[in-house]
Amino acid sequence: MRIRVAASLLLCIAAGCAQQNSITARQVIERIQKNVGVPWSEPTVDTFKAGDPDTPVTCIATTMMATFDVLQRAAAAGCNLVITHEPTFYGHLDNTAELAKENDAVLAAKEQFIKEHHMVVWRFHDHWHMRHPDGIQTGMIEALGWEKYHAPDNYNLFVIPETTVGQLAAWLKNRLGIRTLRVVGDPNMKVTKIALNPGYPGFPAERHTLQRDDVEALVMGEGLEWETIEYGADAVAEGRHKALIILGHIPSEQAGMDFCARWLKGFITEVPVRFIAAKEPFWSPK
Amino acid sequence: MRIRVAASLLLCIAAGCAQQNSITARQVIERIQKNVGVPWSEPTVDTFKAGDPDTPVTCIATTMMATFDVLQRAAAAGCNLVITHEPTFYGHLDNTAELAKENDAVLAAKEQFIKEHHMVVWRFHDHWHMRHPDGIQTGMIEALGWEKYHAPDNYNLFVIPETTVGQLAAWLKNRLGIRTLRVVGDPNMKVTKIALNPGYPGFPAERHTLQRDDVEALVMGEGLEWETIEYGADAVAEGRHKALIILGHIPSEQAGMDFCARWLKGFITEVPVRFIAAKEPFWSPK
Repeated sequence: MRIRVAASLLLCIAAGCAQQNSITARQVIERIQKNVGVPWSEPTVDTFKAGDPDTPVTCIATTMMATFDVLQRAAAAGCNLVITHEPTFYGHLDNTAELAKENDAVLAAKEQFIKEHHMVVWRFHDHWHMRHPDGIQTGMIEALGWEKYHAPDNYNLFVIPETTVGQLAAWLKNRLGIRTLRVVGDPNMKVTKIALNPGYPGFPAERHTLQRDDVEALVMGEGLEWETIEYGADAVAEGRHKALIILGHIPSEQAGMDFCARWLKGFITEVPVRFIAAKEPFWSPK
Repeated sequence: MRIRVAASLLLCIAAGCAQQNSITARQVIERIQKNVGVPWSEPTVDTFKAGDPDTPVTCIATTMMATFDVLQRAAAAGCNLVITHEPTFYGHLDNTAELAKENDAVLAAKEQFIKEHHMVVWRFHDHWHMRHPDGIQTGMIEALGWEKYHAPDNYNLFVIPETTVGQLAAWLKNRLGIRTLRVVGDPNMKVTKIALNPGYPGFPAERHTLQRDDVEALVMGEGLEWETIEYGADAVAEGRHKALIILGHIPSEQAGMDFCARWLKGFITEVPVRFIAAKEPFWSPK
């Protein structure tokens, strides 16, 4: 990929098209704002997190989370603009002030890497979810092949052929390549009515989903153990026909940023766009 | 146990000691406040969560989390006062107003069960941690057999015989009987310097622990994936000698409430005191 980018730049320079084909990070984001189909609303976390927005872009990498590993792989692929769904600096607001005050070495190395490689990091969270339909959800539904199971009038609900919680969990684990998927509920419970809530929507959203009669299993990203998890465990102990399948935050939204790369290619033609999968952080001992 | 309780009550009544041996939930808590060894400080979450504090206590159950399942087992054991470390009603403040407004069925069934069984639930969180030494930590260290590995001057740090992250994780999983323990880091990394942070202390506390040169592996309860987990994954990707071993919230504090039951027996003699283990909510498909 690196060779291809370099070759295309050389060709471009030879043909005198450098000017015409150059685009800055800021211009990429302006084009996203024009194409996302919903008004840009403030306040938003969809802002530049690192780097100079006026940097000419060589290649765009979309990712679920701009971890150090993802930044390394983006740089190795010649991509200097990273569009990340989740935070870069360990908090929803990417606030580095406290960490910087502590002379935090993990932060410093990440910032140094970004600087040395002239990278720009921009977050695409709120408006990618606000898009109609939700960009993350669209990518996840496609990855699952669940378009054909949509329940009427609700983009997050599905009616799948009858299976059990255990079989569905094993299928999801295999389909999405998850090492540490976890389940709350009876593995032998039969299910057809599924809700898909990627990421971390929080307890109110999760419980409103679980309260519905047309939801038996909630497929979710992550939740705190004394909120959604205790609630789910109690629902099961009370004999309700409910289960939680917890994918983990990254696997639950990952495919939505793969879809984002393909979506960007529809209106960004000056530079390559590629998806770089963030690794699931966890493994489990036998 | 049920038979024993009933028998002792009968004996007591026969001997005319019912009056002498009776104690209310409120009196139990007053005695805890007198014995915990630190001043009672407000605001605190250590308050009654359900039931009438003036209920005469038949038996006390301590638990890590007053799930519906734990309440059922406490009632079956004849215990009507449940002392829980973590919330009963799905949030740190046990605020039921929103759930009640939604006519939430899971909440209603739990409240109904508590009422029908004349149970009282009281939370023992802040002051059990504030105790010197921390009551949860003391129970966990005892469960791990790590008293002999204490680092000097810090109750949460240990120097264990050299092992690998993979071996340590497998040992912890087996020792604490955890189904879904997860790890961030290199399984082959050698470790001796361990920090133990049960529960959910939050990202600042977790990162301050990981910043220390005398911490290689952080054994923790739970953390959000774009906070402590991303930070830990980045530390590993940057080549630092760090790892996270994530026990899950319940297994990470459970033994601290087993210890609490034994501690209570030192100054509550009127009624039986027993520990009821909260079940790990998760399982994983193969």
